[in-house]
Amino acid sequence: MSHIRALPSYLVQRFHGWKATTYNDNKAWYRRLAANGQHPRAMVISCCDSRVHVTSIFGADEGEFFIHRNIAGLVPPHNPDGEYHGTSATIEYAVQSLGVAHIVVLGHSNCGGVKGCLDMCSGHAPELLEKTSFVGRWMDILRPGYQRISGLPPELQQPALEREAVLVSLENLMTFPFIKEAVEGDRLTLHGLWTDTGEGGLEQFDPAKGGFVPV
Amino acid sequence: MSHIRALPSYLVQRFHGWKATTYNDNKAWYRRLAANGQHPRAMVISCCDSRVHVTSIFGADEGEFFIHRNIAGLVPPHNPDGEYHGTSATIEYAVQSLGVAHIVVLGHSNCGGVKGCLDMCSGHAPELLEKTSFVGRWMDILRPGYQRISGLPPELQQPALEREAVLVSLENLMTFPFIKEAVEGDRLTLHGLWTDTGEGGLEQFDPAKGGFVPV
Amino acid sequence: MSHIRALPSYLVQRFHGWKATTYNDNKAWYRRLAANGQHPRAMVISCCDSRVHVTSIFGADEGEFFIHRNIAGLVPPHNPDGEYHGTSATIEYAVQSLGVAHIVVLGHSNCGGVKGCLDMCSGHAPELLEKTSFVGRWMDILRPGYQRISGLPPELQQPALEREAVLVSLENLMTFPFIKEAVEGDRLTLHGLWTDTGEGGLEQFDPAKGGFVPV
Amino acid sequence: MSHIRALPSYLVQRFHGWKATTYNDNKAWYRRLAANGQHPRAMVISCCDSRVHVTSIFGADEGEFFIHRNIAGLVPPHNPDGEYHGTSATIEYAVQSLGVAHIVVLGHSNCGGVKGCLDMCSGHAPELLEKTSFVGRWMDILRPGYQRISGLPPELQQPALEREAVLVSLENLMTFPFIKEAVEGDRLTLHGLWTDTGEGGLEQFDPAKGGFVPV
Repeated sequence: MSHIRALPSYLVQRFHGWKATTYNDNKAWYRRLAANGQHPRAMVISCCDSRVHVTSIFGADEGEFFIHRNIAGLVPPHNPDGEYHGTSATIEYAVQSLGVAHIVVLGHSNCGGVKGCLDMCSGHAPELLEKTSFVGRWMDILRPGYQRISGLPPELQQPALEREAVLVSLENLMTFPFIKEAVEGDRLTLHGLWTDTGEGGLEQFDPAKGGFVPV
Repeated sequence: MSHIRALPSYLVQRFHGWKATTYNDNKAWYRRLAANGQHPRAMVISCCDSRVHVTSIFGADEGEFFIHRNIAGLVPPHNPDGEYHGTSATIEYAVQSLGVAHIVVLGHSNCGGVKGCLDMCSGHAPELLEKTSFVGRWMDILRPGYQRISGLPPELQQPALEREAVLVSLENLMTFPFIKEAVEGDRLTLHGLWTDTGEGGLEQFDPAKGGFVPV
Repeated sequence: MSHIRALPSYLVQRFHGWKATTYNDNKAWYRRLAANGQHPRAMVISCCDSRVHVTSIFGADEGEFFIHRNIAGLVPPHNPDGEYHGTSATIEYAVQSLGVAHIVVLGHSNCGGVKGCLDMCSGHAPELLEKTSFVGRWMDILRPGYQRISGLPPELQQPALEREAVLVSLENLMTFPFIKEAVEGDRLTLHGLWTDTGEGGLEQFDPAKGGFVPV
Repeated sequence: MSHIRALPSYLVQRFHGWKATTYNDNKAWYRRLAANGQHPRAMVISCCDSRVHVTSIFGADEGEFFIHRNIAGLVPPHNPDGEYHGTSATIEYAVQSLGVAHIVVLGHSNCGGVKGCLDMCSGHAPELLEKTSFVGRWMDILRPGYQRISGLPPELQQPALEREAVLVSLENLMTFPFIKEAVEGDRLTLHGLWTDTGEGGLEQFDPAKGGFVPV
């Protein structure tokens, strides 16, 4: 492990600053969370993108959200084949072990993963089609969404596909038996959001309208 | 999609509060990030646990960290078999598309995923051994770490395995050819951290000492 | 150039120490900044004073702040007469070329430039009135601020004028057409700060209150 | 001043962190600096570039360096015409009021200001030739340097001009009578440095060799 390096010193300094202030002021809460365990109300599935921190827009503190982040915030379909399924494991843990009451899927504007999918499906990114492209194979999950938006004018496809990504993930969530059962038993509700990071916008999927509407 | 529900109103209210204050004061920055794209300095791989928000302890705002979160913050070995590999896709995107300069793997105390691995490997959680257990199969990644700590007294195994989880992920990172190449070309550095969420502690792996030391 | 001397050896030693440690640990980041260019979030305009290093109080590392420092952190009014305008050039570069989202003007306690202005305006420093005094002519920028505080008791004038220096600079910033346009287009926000270097205090201008308040 | 906004909250948090740690640990020193005034050993003239923080590479704390930063770290020639001369004011204050023993001019690699000068002088940036371009007019200071490197192959011009910028500033410093007098009276020494920010390199001008050499 000789390739491991020391943490940049500015982060060390910031950590000590956090410890002396935020931690110190909230020590009782952090200790209780450590002693009694976490009881998050909701699971959030969102993108890794550095512009999308769900804790910011919802003013969430430690203990509140169980957060999974991957490229484009995608959920693959249920497939218990014994292989590594990181996303499926997070969902199983959130629902079966923690008993979260909500799963929120949060998409966003200017999503690089969605753009990759668009480029790949429209023939502009052959490198993403290769078997060895992890991003390409991951974005295959979104192909059903691409089918639904491929007839739109090009300039409307990216924002439309970002919202489809949320819907595909919500659809795939329901392929997990324990999700379906919890939803039907009213122990879990699902929510679909899309945020415009530049404009600070937030839309949610409204099943009555069949589309996304501003919150 | 009739099972999708409206966002809880307390979150709607918090969002509007954030928009009127934080967003409004930082609109220029969010717009620039939207227009010019993200240029995060570091990727952070951490657990979904609601008690571990890396943006808090390092005072990081939007744009700074590209964050992947899964159960226990694990990285599987490189395996380009054409299947869905969510974690591998995040790493590929961070290194190949964004060119992050650091990957920080952040483990933590009282990790539920690590506890599951410990229970499973020591024979106390037969349900996690089933092929259909996504958490069990995901925690298989950590089995090499369990081998290294299984001789310890039981009460020391959990914190030791949490640190091993960081090391296993760091080892597996190096099995990705593009990581190895970037590390050896001095375009990327790797860092291993473990935080005690209750006590606000932070340790980093020190290769010279072969172990974790407080920062 | 025979008057140029070798760097003091204590600085040479410190540089080699920095290179073997901080540089070495952060090489990947520094190289990426070199290869991909800087994308600083904010421009900071502050004093040259050796007691005021904005990177310290905000835990900022390389790449984060574009920093202009001059006597008292003053910004002159917009005056495109074809002469050398160092401060105006820095602002133009920051806003037009780098697209920073924030300009932070940082004043401070015990500011020697502000003291010079006070002495000059109150008749106690005739030498600063001479045409050949660069400091005197530079501090002329602050005369509108002096008008606003000259009625205060003498012992209150220095700290009041230090804060006025921040406000004069903020006012002058808005005389630059590209600043006004960016501010009104929500692509840029302006911030006024004053720090007490001895007590580690920090105040910001609050337009609702019409004055400076502790952060 | 209704256009002034609140400081981003992540900076507020970092400040409080700094105050609780670094400030608190060094309070005695900061208070002494406030009470007794600054006595910096050296003035540093460097670029605003966010990749060039002289306090980092020389491990300098509060009180040590009086730092002026402008585009490309340029010093214009002595010209006491009664107009605003920000850079000249900083030099006058450093030498005449503070009595610094050294002035260090620090140039750097990938300097955007120097690139602008190169583009302008070689006819590739007509917009910088306009009277209203503050950056263009500021970079006029470097025209004598451009004359000396314009015969080099294009790929060598940028790094050569970055070093010429240091030399032009050092030459211009000597046009200030109080600098010349202090240098000749051995009360002040001048130093020329150039740093490669990506490689962590540092060179100094060696008058014996007539060029820059690694320190």
